[in-house]
Amino acid sequence: MVRLGGNQYGKAEIRVVRVARGAAAGGGDVIRDWSVSTSLSGDLADSHLTGDNANVLPTDSQKNRVYALAREMGAVAPEAFALELGSFFVSSQPPITRARVSIEEYGWQPVGGTGYSFARTGDLIRTTTVVRDADLGVSVVSGIKDLVLMNTTASEFWGYPKDPYTTLPETTDRILATAVNASWRFRPSMVAPPGRPADWDGLFAAARTAITETFAQAYSYSLQQMLYALGSAVIKAVPEVCEVRLALPNKHHFIVDLAPFGLENERAVYHADDRPYGLIEGTVLADDAPAAGIAWT
Amino acid sequence: MVRLGGNQYGKAEIRVVRVARGAAAGGGDVIRDWSVSTSLSGDLADSHLTGDNANVLPTDSQKNRVYALAREMGAVAPEAFALELGSFFVSSQPPITRARVSIEEYGWQPVGGTGYSFARTGDLIRTTTVVRDADLGVSVVSGIKDLVLMNTTASEFWGYPKDPYTTLPETTDRILATAVNASWRFRPSMVAPPGRPADWDGLFAAARTAITETFAQAYSYSLQQMLYALGSAVIKAVPEVCEVRLALPNKHHFIVDLAPFGLENERAVYHADDRPYGLIEGTVLADDAPAAGIAWT
Amino acid sequence: MVRLGGNQYGKAEIRVVRVARGAAAGGGDVIRDWSVSTSLSGDLADSHLTGDNANVLPTDSQKNRVYALAREMGAVAPEAFALELGSFFVSSQPPITRARVSIEEYGWQPVGGTGYSFARTGDLIRTTTVVRDADLGVSVVSGIKDLVLMNTTASEFWGYPKDPYTTLPETTDRILATAVNASWRFRPSMVAPPGRPADWDGLFAAARTAITETFAQAYSYSLQQMLYALGSAVIKAVPEVCEVRLALPNKHHFIVDLAPFGLENERAVYHADDRPYGLIEGTVLADDAPAAGIAWT
Amino acid sequence: MVRLGGNQYGKAEIRVVRVARGAAAGGGDVIRDWSVSTSLSGDLADSHLTGDNANVLPTDSQKNRVYALAREMGAVAPEAFALELGSFFVSSQPPITRARVSIEEYGWQPVGGTGYSFARTGDLIRTTTVVRDADLGVSVVSGIKDLVLMNTTASEFWGYPKDPYTTLPETTDRILATAVNASWRFRPSMVAPPGRPADWDGLFAAARTAITETFAQAYSYSLQQMLYALGSAVIKAVPEVCEVRLALPNKHHFIVDLAPFGLENERAVYHADDRPYGLIEGTVLADDAPAAGIAWT
Repeated sequence: MVRLGGNQYGKAEIRVVRVARGAAAGGGDVIRDWSVSTSLSGDLADSHLTGDNANVLPTDSQKNRVYALAREMGAVAPEAFALELGSFFVSSQPPITRARVSIEEYGWQPVGGTGYSFARTGDLIRTTTVVRDADLGVSVVSGIKDLVLMNTTASEFWGYPKDPYTTLPETTDRILATAVNASWRFRPSMVAPPGRPADWDGLFAAARTAITETFAQAYSYSLQQMLYALGSAVIKAVPEVCEVRLALPNKHHFIVDLAPFGLENERAVYHADDRPYGLIEGTVLADDAPAAGIAWT
Repeated sequence: MVRLGGNQYGKAEIRVVRVARGAAAGGGDVIRDWSVSTSLSGDLADSHLTGDNANVLPTDSQKNRVYALAREMGAVAPEAFALELGSFFVSSQPPITRARVSIEEYGWQPVGGTGYSFARTGDLIRTTTVVRDADLGVSVVSGIKDLVLMNTTASEFWGYPKDPYTTLPETTDRILATAVNASWRFRPSMVAPPGRPADWDGLFAAARTAITETFAQAYSYSLQQMLYALGSAVIKAVPEVCEVRLALPNKHHFIVDLAPFGLENERAVYHADDRPYGLIEGTVLADDAPAAGIAWT
Repeated sequence: MVRLGGNQYGKAEIRVVRVARGAAAGGGDVIRDWSVSTSLSGDLADSHLTGDNANVLPTDSQKNRVYALAREMGAVAPEAFALELGSFFVSSQPPITRARVSIEEYGWQPVGGTGYSFARTGDLIRTTTVVRDADLGVSVVSGIKDLVLMNTTASEFWGYPKDPYTTLPETTDRILATAVNASWRFRPSMVAPPGRPADWDGLFAAARTAITETFAQAYSYSLQQMLYALGSAVIKAVPEVCEVRLALPNKHHFIVDLAPFGLENERAVYHADDRPYGLIEGTVLADDAPAAGIAWT
Repeated sequence: MVRLGGNQYGKAEIRVVRVARGAAAGGGDVIRDWSVSTSLSGDLADSHLTGDNANVLPTDSQKNRVYALAREMGAVAPEAFALELGSFFVSSQPPITRARVSIEEYGWQPVGGTGYSFARTGDLIRTTTVVRDADLGVSVVSGIKDLVLMNTTASEFWGYPKDPYTTLPETTDRILATAVNASWRFRPSMVAPPGRPADWDGLFAAARTAITETFAQAYSYSLQQMLYALGSAVIKAVPEVCEVRLALPNKHHFIVDLAPFGLENERAVYHADDRPYGLIEGTVLADDAPAAGIAWT
């Protein structure tokens, strides 16, 4: 009467910190501070139906492989790590036909000039998700989480339809603030570049800069318009990217009515509201973007 | 060079509390405590490309409609509310061709016998997501979040493959604990039942009971097996459901090694670990489940 | 030029779960699910000033003692455990003259009738803090965290001063909701009762019931008045308690103005706001309460 | 039988954002992004005992005053704002004899060169708490929250006592990581300096730099030693400070045992653990520090 559908399993949020001693340009340490999550799928029906675990590599073993691989690879870019880890599971476990590896990277900046001292940056989280399928190949989607940006002006919102529940006044000057959550899909050619390893860190830096600079430079009539501008900028700055998906909460800053207290409030005092908030989600693609395939699965 | 792909926008986490005075069986109040999120899609390209907002009903208006509809409908089930709200947006805004409405419901139980006094239950969150598409119809997916269950025994885990990174010892007795995150899709016939409104609250209660009872009764050789048992039980208990999707974190309780202190620890003292954790995801379907269509979009 | 002042150190948030097999009345298991935090003080200046750790029992050893003691004592009340643990550190480590042990207890209720299956309750956190001083004796402060209560009526707020910044309208009917955070100090005689162990679980249940019932029964003109009623009720219900400290956030539920939409909203639809919130803090004491001494340090 | 003890009330977490247009050195905007909490005490017994609110200035009015004062004062330092706000409540409300104002400040850095574009920094939270008492004067305590620092070496831990529960191996090289939570009390002369307003921003920057630099430069035999070094450094760098209180979680980074996989792990791969964690708390005072008085109440 019932049957098993799609399924996957793995270890979530493996908190591995890799220190590469003396590997920085100036002789200091390099740190990679990650939360790694693995997810495997394949011939796993028996475990669900009968409790036969013959095909279920323990999530504990997956965790161990993460630590060991960090030892072997050094403080590499998360994309390089996830590519290697995904291949490992699919190639070493015959019943496993697909591996999904997601990494969150937390930033640290050197302090004090010692080479071994760091402060956590906290301004954003770098992300990557690699999906490796035994038949369909591999995809890399990288991104940013929780990069909070604000323009104190250069944002308008008007010309919208007014239904019987519309009380919002139109505005030609408002604060526009958001937490950028973006992920960008690399072209297949990028994933397996001929002849040399990809400069994943450089590509991330370029995408990040494009987002921040575009947010600052764009004059906005809606957060949707900003979303499209940000996505376009990433593709333009990083031609290796063919698709960008964004989710932008509208972090409302409401002007406070100070008239009851005899004060004007011309663009000066705002209330930063928590909930509810607008949420704008959208996709920007290169005209020649190949189909997404397994990328966002 | 670039183009706009899929997109949607709306208001997230509208915290509406509806009190229906004297509506309870014994004459007390009924409370519905919700976080409502809306998301609309349709002909929204202009807003992204040019900042022309002629088709963009403000998220503030969406919020206002939520409050007004709560006034009109009373303390109804979240499914009934979401169905009505989704239809409203699609039918009243021609450019909008699809509306997605998600609701989290927080539970309260009467205390003190006053009829107006309540304590928040905190044991789980009830959820529903309705997608209404102008062309493709409507779907209802309801569920549970964060129902934390534990069996202190009746769980084994062995017979798994041992790769070079496997150090986990097999066990024939362990604690099995998880936070049930489940969502179940109703059959299309359920969404528009002939002649009478659906008893959404009763269906939720039946699904919830099936999950809790099955978790307690099932002897488990893996969390995957438990997942399949839980999904099957919901479909059996609620024939109006045709598909169940579950995500079950393995909330690891590790037995503590007390041998260094001269103490045996036979199934007595455990460490409840935070991270990493196993994460088991899977789907159970009725054999005759129709295609999911827009349900999980 | 500078000197060391007060200091303490310990291990925070030790997540120990103690299962007492078959210990329940009906033959089922009893669970104690705790987060234990220890904090020691005494002759610790050297560690701060020179890095000489001769007096610094590692926090890791403190953690180990928690697990071992849980093995030894069984699924006892948190107060009994904390009393024993505090005594252990002070009596076994000569440089340590004071130990502070805090425990949060998370509730589980049996489900399914198996005796080994449980669901986490989630409605509140039970707390206790024991301070054991080598010279000054011992104190026990227990309490509740995050018990969320609501009266949908029977609450007024008016008669307050109006300064130039007051715009709040007076009301004779509002929702009153709070998250009860309360801690109650036991009389010294309670801590070392002659002849028999204290029924800590029974005392907790009595205090909890007093809070919930009083919240329901009290008619309130301010949250301050409710605070005093709650504190008084605990002391009345549990004469072993001589002082109660409460912190009550005013979880604002604002009536939504639906007039713009042609709808009256007579006590029906509310917005549950996040921030800012009122915060009312206060103490209620028995007339004959002895000085608090080390209790709240 | 019971009586009212100490009490206070106010509005917590008022999320005010003040934009001073063109006020930056280069002509750009200055932002102050705050969470302000007020707490008043005085002759408030009636509200608790009878519900007579004649002395209870609504927390809503307190909130309004925050917004209005932000308009009046501009994007000033949080210390200056809190001093003014505290004085306002005590001077304008006769029953109120003490006001406590706490502010958390979130950092933003200019991006894009527009003068109105900013990115949230996220590396730490700046704090201040001002207590104004009608009789006892005023105190200012400022600080830092959640500044996460790490040394990948230059940290040892050994020479500690070994009790029967000690299994921790001694180490002469470990990662030392913490989240600095520090608050420093200013000397009374600082609070009301003769003739000119204090440079609160400059003092904060000096304290912050002292903490980061000292953390990097100090060789540590215990986190206690680091705590004392950090506190001393603040007092040395900012002579206006007479007392520093610190709470330093030991963010454990455990070396992973890779021997089962045939790999050595010489200071390379670590597991960043969540809980439990060591927690080191302590105070450092200038030799001539006056009594704390109302500062930490």
